[in-house]
Formats: sequence, C-alpha cells, structure tokens
Amino acid sequence: MQILVTNDDGIMAPGIQALARKMTELGDVILVAPSEEQSASGHGITILDPIPVKQLSFKGIKEAWAVRGTPADCVKLAVQELAKNKCSLVISGINNGPNLGTDVLYSGTVSAAIEGAILGIPSMAVSLGEYDYLEFETAAEIALALARQLYQNRDGIPHDTLLNVNVPALKKEQIKGFKVTRLGVREYENVFDRRVDPRGNIYYWLKGEIIPPRNHDDETDVVAVDDGFVSISPIQFDLTNHRIISKIKNIGFEDVKF
Amino acid sequence: MQILVTNDDGIMAPGIQALARKMTELGDVILVAPSEEQSASGHGITILDPIPVKQLSFKGIKEAWAVRGTPADCVKLAVQELAKNKCSLVISGINNGPNLGTDVLYSGTVSAAIEGAILGIPSMAVSLGEYDYLEFETAAEIALALARQLYQNRDGIPHDTLLNVNVPALKKEQIKGFKVTRLGVREYENVFDRRVDPRGNIYYWLKGEIIPPRNHDDETDVVAVDDGFVSISPIQFDLTNHRIISKIKNIGFEDVKF
Repeated sequence: MQILVTNDDGIMAPGIQALARKMTELGDVILVAPSEEQSASGHGITILDPIPVKQLSFKGIKEAWAVRGTPADCVKLAVQELAKNKCSLVISGINNGPNLGTDVLYSGTVSAAIEGAILGIPSMAVSLGEYDYLEFETAAEIALALARQLYQNRDGIPHDTLLNVNVPALKKEQIKGFKVTRLGVREYENVFDRRVDPRGNIYYWLKGEIIPPRNHDDETDVVAVDDGFVSISPIQFDLTNHRIISKIKNIGFEDVKF
Repeated sequence: MQILVTNDDGIMAPGIQALARKMTELGDVILVAPSEEQSASGHGITILDPIPVKQLSFKGIKEAWAVRGTPADCVKLAVQELAKNKCSLVISGINNGPNLGTDVLYSGTVSAAIEGAILGIPSMAVSLGEYDYLEFETAAEIALALARQLYQNRDGIPHDTLLNVNVPALKKEQIKGFKVTRLGVREYENVFDRRVDPRGNIYYWLKGEIIPPRNHDDETDVVAVDDGFVSISPIQFDLTNHRIISKIKNIGFEDVKF
C-alpha cells in the first residue's frame, strides 16, 4: 500500500518529516511536498507558470519529490503523474499551527487533502493546535492511528468527504481523547497593521489575534481542541448549499429581467 | 450604498472594468482588486509577506485600490480597512473563463465572494463561460440585474451562502434564461505536460482538456451553461459534511487507540 504524504509548510518542515517516518509503519510512503513554505496558499493551483520538481532521498521513504508549487499542485502531480494513480491514502501535515473553523478555507494543508478526495482517494489533514510547538511525535502517533482507521473504513465514508484533524498542543498523557466535530468559527481582532515604506508607499501586514471560543457547549472543532481533545471534522468539497436551492428559485432568481 | 467590486484577473482586466462601470447604476463602487493576474489562487491569503497597496483613479468609480495580494486579501483589506465596514454588496468578476463545479475551489474569483460572505456581506461571483471571449457587456448587464435581486432579497439568503454565477459566452438574444443549479463535476483529460529544461531539470505544465458533461438531465451549473443558460449556484463556506458526523462517530473514530 502506498501513502502520499504532503503538507504546506515545505518538505523539510519537522511536521511532515515526523509524519512521513510514522506512516512507514502503515505502508510505503511517497513524499511529495512544496520545496518552500506555502502557508495560507488555500486551494491555489499553478496554471500560469511551470512547476519545477526535484527528486530527493530520505531514509525509509520510498520516493520523495520537492515541488515548486502549491499543496494542491503536489497532490495532483503526485497522484496523476509521479505515483500514477497508485496512492491508497493522502495524509497532509502535520501542520505547524491549527486549521480550525472558517480558517480551513485558507489552509494549504487542508486543500491538499481536499485535492486527494477530489481524486477519489481517502484523505486526511492533520494539524497541531499551536504555532511553533515543535513536539510532533504525539501528533504523528495520532495521525497513524486515525489513518489506519480511515483506511479500514474507507468504504463507509462518502467519496466527497475527507477528515480534518487537529491535535491539541499537549503531552500525550494530557490529551483527553477524540471528538467528531463540525467546523466552528474562528474570530480575530485587529486584523490589519498599516505601515508606510521609506518611499511613502502604503503596505499592510495581515495579523489578528484569535478571540477564544465564547460558547463551550458547541460541538465544534474550535471548542474540542480548546478543551484538550483531538478534533476530527468530516468535510466535503461540494460547496453547494443544497438546502437553499428551492428558496433561491422561489425568490425569483430564474425570472430576473436584464 | 457602497458596492465592493473585485476579481482575480487583476484591476486592469476588461471584465472587472465592465462590471465596475455597470455597478455604478446601483450604487457607489469601491474597486479593490489585485494589481496583477491571480487566477487559480484559490482562497489563499498573504500572511508571510506584506501587502502593498496603491490608490488609483477611474472615471465614475468612487475609490480604487490595486493590491499586491490575492483576491481574498483584497476583500479582507477593503472591508476591514479601506472601506471600513461600509460595503453593502461584494461582486467579484467578471472572470475571463468559467468557474464551474469542483473548479470553484481553485477560483480566486469565487474565493473573493466567499470572503465577502464570511465578513457578513451579501456576495456574488460572476464568470464568463469561455476564455478570451472578450465581450463582457451582456454579462455585466446580467450581473447588475442579479446584484439588484440579491440586494433586495438579502434577508432571505443565509449568511453563510453566496451566489456563484456563470454566464454563457453568447450574444444577449441567444441566452436562454436563468437556472438555479448545484455545482457539478468538471472532468479533465491529459493533465500534466512533462518537460526538461536546458540544464536537465524536470518541470511540468498543468493543462488538461475539459470533458463535456455526459449527462444533460442533471440540474448542475456545468449543464446549464452548456445548454445556454445563466447558472446561479448558491454555495456556502461551511465545509462540514453534517450528514456524516454521526456515522463517523459510529465507526469508532472517537475510540481510536494510540
């Protein structure tokens, strides 16, 4: 069995290295990841530029490629070209920092797993709940256990669905367990920092401090991780709001004059 | 009323220029768009680099800014900083080429509208059904009519939902009408073109020819546009697959050992 391992922090990041090593316990690992950090690249793909690739070698890893492209490029290229449709699982991560709630839309890590699902492969994204918490071993063990569970139950999960996993930044014995959750909302304050360069041109830095979840009764990913649980959210790539289709028809959108 | 107009083809693209001019019939237009083409940037945001901005001036447009960032950056920056929470509508487009089915995940145009919805503003993405079909006037008229309808009915549409509109590349009198649709699947063939540079390094170009929809009975966006209708798909930014949560619990994901 071949497992594609990818990420958005770049192929040399400690999170993907820990994940790839651990995944060798489940199958042959094909490591295809960006040559440089691509955080917050979202589901971008590269269509205006060529995508250079370079083969690398890591102990215990069957095949490794550094790709000068986005995480979604990596998965497309790995599945359709470099590993020619022989991947049985796509595992993306372990991300340096959480991918929770509405933030998953910006996440290269999650987008890589979405791309895996689009290509028909059981897929999972794994992120660690705090930035620069450099202890990835526990999260890698959790990723392995969940990847095994995902693979064994792959026929029970719809093809348009993947798992978004967030592991709290805690020692193994402090982790309270697993919770299946829905995506919550991540709220930020003070979002843009305005500056002026030495020539008088304006530029901004996007920043923003997280507002902790207000309501701990929610069964959301945000709350689960805040409470010390590993969060597992099933997410889908069909963005259609099916429940609202007939309402949109009823309010006359099919009868608009122009 | 202030309308934020943005896109992913860049602020000088003919599609956004036609859209912005037309939208002045509905309200004051704030034009905030990437300084250069950002196609397929997906929902990327810029967090590792600063975001330079430059004020521009266009006849009839209240305020215009070119942003060296992604479409999602543009909307965040416009709503939270440049136009300080005074936008009543976000209209993104008119994209040079369609944004249909699974491809919406890669679309900077759609991501800009998703960002508008996340920020609580009624939002719509508008794309033209063929690449380099340079006649944007009909699509702009349609965008205006739909924007008006959206604004008038904004209380009837859930806050997590936006409209993804695709206009067929046809003359006005050839357009058959409007259809409210779900997202379909866009299938491609021959996806990667492998090349070797003069130094012997491998690189790829992502290409791929579209396979036309097989089944015309579907109520999908792909079929509607292929049949000559304007497609209107309600899409949402909550990626949770709510229907599958209890099933994921039942197959033991909360009891995994590690």
